[in-house]
Amino acid sequence: MQNDIVISTRIRLARNLKEFPFPCKLDAKGRKAVAEKVKSAVTNSNSALAQQMVCMDLDSLTKIQRANLVESHLVSPEFVADTNGRELLLTKDNSISVMVNEEDHIRIQVILPGFDLDGAYNIADKTDTLFDENLNYAFDKRLGYLTQCPTNLGTGMRASVMLHLPALQRTKAIGRIAGNLSKLGLTIRGIYGEGSEPKGAMYQLSNQVTLGISEKAAMENLKNITLQLINQEKITRERLFNSIEVQDVVSRSLGVLKYAKAISCEEAMALLSNVRMGVIAGEITDVQIEKINSLFTEVQPAAIMVKAGESLTPEKRDIFRAKLISSSL
Amino acid sequence: MQNDIVISTRIRLARNLKEFPFPCKLDAKGRKAVAEKVKSAVTNSNSALAQQMVCMDLDSLTKIQRANLVESHLVSPEFVADTNGRELLLTKDNSISVMVNEEDHIRIQVILPGFDLDGAYNIADKTDTLFDENLNYAFDKRLGYLTQCPTNLGTGMRASVMLHLPALQRTKAIGRIAGNLSKLGLTIRGIYGEGSEPKGAMYQLSNQVTLGISEKAAMENLKNITLQLINQEKITRERLFNSIEVQDVVSRSLGVLKYAKAISCEEAMALLSNVRMGVIAGEITDVQIEKINSLFTEVQPAAIMVKAGESLTPEKRDIFRAKLISSSL
Repeated sequence: MQNDIVISTRIRLARNLKEFPFPCKLDAKGRKAVAEKVKSAVTNSNSALAQQMVCMDLDSLTKIQRANLVESHLVSPEFVADTNGRELLLTKDNSISVMVNEEDHIRIQVILPGFDLDGAYNIADKTDTLFDENLNYAFDKRLGYLTQCPTNLGTGMRASVMLHLPALQRTKAIGRIAGNLSKLGLTIRGIYGEGSEPKGAMYQLSNQVTLGISEKAAMENLKNITLQLINQEKITRERLFNSIEVQDVVSRSLGVLKYAKAISCEEAMALLSNVRMGVIAGEITDVQIEKINSLFTEVQPAAIMVKAGESLTPEKRDIFRAKLISSSL
Repeated sequence: MQNDIVISTRIRLARNLKEFPFPCKLDAKGRKAVAEKVKSAVTNSNSALAQQMVCMDLDSLTKIQRANLVESHLVSPEFVADTNGRELLLTKDNSISVMVNEEDHIRIQVILPGFDLDGAYNIADKTDTLFDENLNYAFDKRLGYLTQCPTNLGTGMRASVMLHLPALQRTKAIGRIAGNLSKLGLTIRGIYGEGSEPKGAMYQLSNQVTLGISEKAAMENLKNITLQLINQEKITRERLFNSIEVQDVVSRSLGVLKYAKAISCEEAMALLSNVRMGVIAGEITDVQIEKINSLFTEVQPAAIMVKAGESLTPEKRDIFRAKLISSSL
């Protein structure tokens, strides 16, 4: 049931090598040396985990393919903006991605579907151990893991959940909630673009504090607040679905998604968000929730062009997107 | 092909009895005397036409049923606003309706589906003959049939076609056309409400001049201009359907009609208009044009309540209407 609202869980660990300055202070040669060291930690290991990891040649990717990596949340926009001296290690199932020479030397990221903080942390921890065994981490007994940005000092961990909160968005309750979260050491923001009304009602809730708190305590805090948010979203949805107005909006959204001949990414996400809420409420019975979940990523501009196999104007993308959606539903 | 654009054809004849003042100058007793005379003309006749006519007891109808007669274009709003001394003669197929004691003593109206001025006129003429044989019409050799309003003097005939002109409405060409029509002795107006954008893009084109012109000449004029309008509408539609934007609007309209859980009469008509255009253009293949045509009448407020069998608030009507449409399509 929690997975109706929590789309995915993410753990990110920031690590740096003792013997090198932070990436921003490194020249091309220095970055290359860091990258070789990190890669060798994987290639020298015989662990099952290391076997699954492949190094992606960023320079062989087109601009569209790189943008698609960002849309899939596997890398940051900054990471692919300049690929010089950077490396991406990736497991085949995309659950683990390691950015080398982004803001820090190593950024380990694990994404799992649904609400699974412990599961994601375990995988991240194992990946961390793989590197730790083969590299010298910059670690201070008092400060913990040293990172370029002080906000990551300590655990270097950012734990987050991707939440679908259409009811709290529709009733504007999310604004009030967001204001209170910072007092609890958490922050919430839109996943697809910032602003007061994030696209598709998709939010990322994550811990802000990394210093003076253990990984376990930070995750426990995030877990508790997430459960409260899930509860508030559920209560609000039940109330909303008592009104014919919301039932109408939800059902029409499915109609438009099925029948549109051209649709923007923004409109598609707003309608998918409505339909997703309708499927979970049992108002829409002939659509699979997994189909809706994957469409959120598939309708993104770069994903459309990767699928089309060519660069497309926004107008052509809107037509391709409409066809993709109506054939999916 | 013409019937794609001409929904129906209507002929109306205004007649008065020599021995009575116009209805507005009659008291209740006088109106009753007129009504009895007109009814006796039908009951005394053995003709097949007379046999088909039934006299409807207006006072036995509910307010909703009366409003439904107006929506079906069988009577004028004024006619049912005050039923005192008024009678309605109707054939079972609703093709002929005779209002007694509306503005004139007798208003004969014939409506046929599609573009059929001659057919409608022939039936109206036969009905006229039925009354003429049994009653004394107020007729002047110089002025022709005498009517209460001078604009009906002469033939007393108003011939009209109901046109569906979504393309000329969308391109705003209809405004320019309307301005020119008055010079040709014709007038065009919205059928469902006036204004610059008549609901459902449904227009009534009719002759304005009844004096100094024969019925035949007036109909010929209307026929020629109608053919020109049909042609302009067709050319404009072909141009419009080259754009994905219009294909998108048309297809989405069908999606919303199928999926809405509540819909106003105005929105339903606008969407039906788009879908009708799409069906005729061959863009929509799984909807019958007859279904769309009948929905234009079925979605009207009184029609909804007649079908529901009870008086409904606007909100309840919107829900009933949405169910009706989605089950129809």
